[in-house]
This record gives sequence, structure tokens and C-alpha cells, in this order.
Amino acid sequence: MKIEVDRHLLLSQLSYISRAIPNKTPHPVLTGIKFVVTGEGLYLTGSDSDITINTFLPLEVEETQVINIEETGSIIIPGKYFIEIIKKLNGQTISISTFEGNYAMIKCGGSEYTLNGFDVNQYPNIELIKRDDAIQMEKQLLKTIIRQTVFSTANNENRPVLTGVNFRHDEDELICIATDSFRLSKKIVPLNKEHKPFNLVIPGRSLKDLSNILDDTADNVEIHLSSNHVLFQFGNISFQSRLLEGIYPETSEFVPTTVAIEIKADYQELYNAFDRASLIARDQFSNVVKLDIQPEKGKMLITANSPDVGKVEEAVNIDMLKGTELRIACSALFILDALKAINNPNSEVLIGFNGDMRPFILRDQNDETTIQLIVPVRME
Amino acid sequence: MKIEVDRHLLLSQLSYISRAIPNKTPHPVLTGIKFVVTGEGLYLTGSDSDITINTFLPLEVEETQVINIEETGSIIIPGKYFIEIIKKLNGQTISISTFEGNYAMIKCGGSEYTLNGFDVNQYPNIELIKRDDAIQMEKQLLKTIIRQTVFSTANNENRPVLTGVNFRHDEDELICIATDSFRLSKKIVPLNKEHKPFNLVIPGRSLKDLSNILDDTADNVEIHLSSNHVLFQFGNISFQSRLLEGIYPETSEFVPTTVAIEIKADYQELYNAFDRASLIARDQFSNVVKLDIQPEKGKMLITANSPDVGKVEEAVNIDMLKGTELRIACSALFILDALKAINNPNSEVLIGFNGDMRPFILRDQNDETTIQLIVPVRME
Repeated sequence: MKIEVDRHLLLSQLSYISRAIPNKTPHPVLTGIKFVVTGEGLYLTGSDSDITINTFLPLEVEETQVINIEETGSIIIPGKYFIEIIKKLNGQTISISTFEGNYAMIKCGGSEYTLNGFDVNQYPNIELIKRDDAIQMEKQLLKTIIRQTVFSTANNENRPVLTGVNFRHDEDELICIATDSFRLSKKIVPLNKEHKPFNLVIPGRSLKDLSNILDDTADNVEIHLSSNHVLFQFGNISFQSRLLEGIYPETSEFVPTTVAIEIKADYQELYNAFDRASLIARDQFSNVVKLDIQPEKGKMLITANSPDVGKVEEAVNIDMLKGTELRIACSALFILDALKAINNPNSEVLIGFNGDMRPFILRDQNDETTIQLIVPVRME
Repeated sequence: MKIEVDRHLLLSQLSYISRAIPNKTPHPVLTGIKFVVTGEGLYLTGSDSDITINTFLPLEVEETQVINIEETGSIIIPGKYFIEIIKKLNGQTISISTFEGNYAMIKCGGSEYTLNGFDVNQYPNIELIKRDDAIQMEKQLLKTIIRQTVFSTANNENRPVLTGVNFRHDEDELICIATDSFRLSKKIVPLNKEHKPFNLVIPGRSLKDLSNILDDTADNVEIHLSSNHVLFQFGNISFQSRLLEGIYPETSEFVPTTVAIEIKADYQELYNAFDRASLIARDQFSNVVKLDIQPEKGKMLITANSPDVGKVEEAVNIDMLKGTELRIACSALFILDALKAINNPNSEVLIGFNGDMRPFILRDQNDETTIQLIVPVRME
């Protein structure tokens, strides 16, 4: 293999691939990037065995030649070193060639690197599974689904299936749910009836990595579902993740459809008040604050108390839409996470309660598709 | 004590004071900020017992009232919490009052905090020592002295005096030296003969903290020297550091006054080449690279070899000013640190050698006041 390639275009491909390169792995070959040069261009692959990212750089981009191929071929080049080297080189074009099998030589201006690579046969054979019945979804919608759910996935592996987001399609809806059993995020988006029903769980970490790669353009993503994998295809990038095994728990009975008490408050005022209260709450077990809804004053008091540090009281203006006074305790961080998911500083937030021991829900008053549910903690 | 104070002005005072607040300390009271309100305004003090920072906020700034004093007094308020709270509050004015001795109440809009403080009598009595014969120095010159020397101080405490920068005044020069015994930085600036000679060592950490507080204005700093302390006074800020005890070693014999081999190279080309070579060198003991000066080619080759990763060769264009070929080995990181201290991308750098086992020196060709010396390592 011997090519000359535009350094900046190569760097942008590497910025995608780098998401899949593990820092530590029992399989050293996976710390490398797979280079395959054919007559069509350069294919790059990175994988940590859970996710696999593949990019393609054609010979020409916008009618300008960006790769000059002297010899086709393939090699595995150590990823971390290669990326740092390409970043720090100064020229516009770099030359990459292989010699004596597993060595890669990189030249640019007065710089010449020789890196110890791996034979391409040592790299696992990862099939990217495409289907004819792929789902088409707007990039920005997919990013929003991820942003509004993935933070509620479980961090610990006690119940592995909870570390993922459940995607369920039935009738004309796609329902996306994440829960760590202390809180739950639910997003509903329309999905054409023509697609077969499915019910699968995508690892939260895969979705976070995917979200970081999805740029802010308006293009579509193709979603290819197979029995053990999901492949997201956009532009010249393929992002494949394994699915989590196991049955996702039925959660619909936990999400209240009616509420006994409902208040409305300004997003930014609410966010700032909980953010400040959490300064004192954070030294307490799970950042607990107490909410005290006072209908006659049109206020919600947020209080926290840390014997070592001191105490705080924040008064938030509320519109009482329904119900009466209530005292309830919960994690300030869960509320802040839920508000970040709503992320609409110019809007007002609805909070619905069914008593001090039942889950309560937050949502943007202008968005019925997204619900953030939080389980309260027992009042002292 | 009871005051109302402009939040933004208070925050800017706190940003200075925070540099002195220790994260961990055997004296809990030092995690607090000392507030003293007199008829003139608000004095704030923070200290980790090595350095002490004091600021003063007068009643009026630019003819606008910024503090309203209802009651003078004093208290120690937990620093970390106080600063975060003031940052997160929304209003323009905050009220701070003390009650029941050691409690501080902070109010702003709908927010009310009570923090557990300390009695002001528990705070150590730290005298800020001013002298009539203070040295006047431009802020930017002081920042440059620190930037060009402090990185060469020793990190470990084997020889405590080497963790500081030596400031020595004799005749009409101030000589500033730092060395960890593997490299040495030397800066010479003019200083009026009228000042008495001195020879003292300021802790490197104190100088780093001071440098972060010195803004980019053209004002002067007053430097007050006493037997155990140095006090830097600028604007309404006093920054006092203890001095290091012990005799700073005599280093003049290690700094060559003549060189047998001298080359000149473009700053940026040199920096980039060592930066790239260090990628491969970093897995080796102390980032060793080899330099190979080839007069007949007008090149210096920089090479590094890591059995696990691979190897690199960088060719840098040089002007041979004096001498013949040379092969020498040294730490790439030391060279990068020295170049960062020179920090003149549009200039050329002179490097002078006296053989492969003798220290070599780098300097900006347009700056005779600063020398960066590096001890080579033995060639393999």
C-alpha cells in the first residue's frame, strides 16, 4: 500500500474513527486503525468490539483529487500515535506506505515516521449489516432522542439491560425509554406503520458516541436493524453497535397518566434555584432537597440543609394549575438533569405530582412528546 | 457585620483571594475567607500560611457606591462554598450579614443561604510587611521573569531551596535563576544601584500563583522585601509569600560564557520538529531524542526510537554559525519547555554547544537577557 492523501480530510475521518479506538483492550490489534486502499479510495475502520466505525474517503472530493494511489493494499496502524502524528504534521499532503509487511512509513516535509503496525489478517472480521428496510430519521431528531433519554440509563451493571435505551416500535410510534429505576426518561416520535414492529435495547455508551459524531446538518440517518446489531449510516460513515441482550422491563405502569397536583414555573428560574440549592445539598446523600409547594403564596420553596456547611432556601414563583400544598423530597441533581434534557430556557415547565411517595413528572409545557420522571425520596 | 455589596465587584475580589485558599489544610479556619468591614470598605484575606492574599474594596468605585454598610464587623466565611454561591446568584447586589456570632447569612432575590463560619479570632494573625525602600517593577516584566524561569524549579523536595527561584541583586542588575540540576533558566534585568544588595529564594508555587493574578495592564508592582517574606503590592491587592530558607547554590560556573559550536534555526520549525519527535520519545525514559548536527547539509536531524511504537526522524534547517558536526542526546520536553519560555515564533533561536557531555544553551537571537541551559544525557 502506498498513497498520498490530503492531511485535513484524513484528520476529519480520523476524528470519527477515534471514538471507537479503545484505550485499553485485551486485543492489542484493536488499538490500531484498519487502512484498506482500493481503486475507489481509502476505507478506515476502528472498533472496540462493541462499536465499530467505518469511513470512506473517495479519490475525489468536490472534483478535487484528494488521494493519489500508487499501490493498493492494507495495514493496521497504531491509532493513538497515528492520529497525534497527523495532527502535528505541517504539510497539506502526507504520504503513507507500508514496507516489510507490518511497518508503516509516514512522510511529510522534513518528517519521517516509521510505526510498528499489525498484519490486517489479525484484525477481527466485522461485518457491517445493512438491510433493505432501513428506517430513515432526521439527524437532529436522533440527536434529540439521545440527549433526552441517555442520561437516565443505569451506570452500574447490576441489570445490564438498564445500561441501554429501549427503542420500541408498534403501530405508528417509536417509543424510547431509559431508566435506572430512580428516574425515567421517555420520548415518543412518529414512525411509519410500514416498518415492522421491533423492541430492542441500544447500549447508552454507543448512543453517546454516536451523538458526538452526528453533526448539525439536516441530513437523514439510515438505521439498519438486525438481530444483534444496529447500524447507523450517514454520509460516508457507518456506525455499528451491538445490541444489549435481555428483555427490557415494562415501565408503562410507573408513568402516571394523570396528576393530582400540577404547577408551572419559568424554566430558567427553576434551573437556577435548583442549581444553587445543589451547592449545599451535594454533601448530603444523593443531593437531597425538599420542595414545599405553597399555593396561597404562589411559591415553591426549595430547601437543603448540611450540618457541616449550612442551609439554603430558594423561593421560586409558580402558577398553581391544579391541587393543593405538598411537601416532597428528591435529588436536586436528578431535577437538574431532567431540566437539561428539556433544555428550553424560554419556556415554562410543568411539574405533576401524585403525593409525596409517588413518582413525579416534568415536561416542557410546549412539548408533549417528552416526559422526565423522578422517584422522590422519603421525607425525614 | 451587615453589608450590601455589588456582586460582580465582590466576585472579582474573590477570584484573587481564591488562589490562596487551600483545598486541604490541617487548619480548617484557613479554608475560610476573612471578611473585615470598616468605615472605609471591605477587606478580604485568604491564606494557606505560605502565601497570603489581601484585597480591599472601597465604598465607591469610579464615583459609584458599591458597598452599603449597615454595620461594621468581621467573620470568617467558608471560602469554597461562598465563592460558588456568589457565582451562581443572579442579582446585582447581595446582602451579607452575621448573626449569633459565627453564622453568615447571604441574601439575593429569592435566595437565602446560611453558612457556618468561624470566629475571626481563630484566624492566624498574619502581618503584611511593607517597607519604605520597595522596588518598583513593571507588571509585565515581573510576569516575564516568572514565565521564563519558574518551570525550571525542582518539583521534588530533596533540596527544598531548588523549588524556588533565586533573585539576586548586586551592582545594577537583578539576576533570576531557577534550576532542578538537569536544566537552568537565567534572566537578567537592570535594577537601580540605589537598592541594597539582596539574595533570596521565592517559592516557585508562590510565583505561579502571583503570575496568575497579575493582569496585562502596564502598571507597576511594588516589591517589599523583609527577612522572611516578600510582599507584592499592586492596585488594591497585597500578595505576600514566605521565602525559602537555605543558601541557593552558586551556578555561574555551569553556565558557559563561550560555545564551541553554534547553530541558528527558525523558532517555529524547531518547536514543531521537537514537538513531533516527542510523540515517539515520550515512551522512553525522560523523552530522550538524539540531535545530529550536519554542517555540510545545513541540517539538524532529530531522531527518537521506541522499540514498541516505532521511530521518527525530523530534519530541521539550520545556519551553521560556528564549529563542526555534533551528536548529542537530551530530553525533548526540556527543549520544548525552553522554547516555550523563549516564546517568540517570529524569531530565530541560537543553540550553543561545548561537546556531547557539556550543558548546551538556547536563546532568542534578539534577547541577550535570557538563557535556557540543558544538561545532555549520555548517548547510548
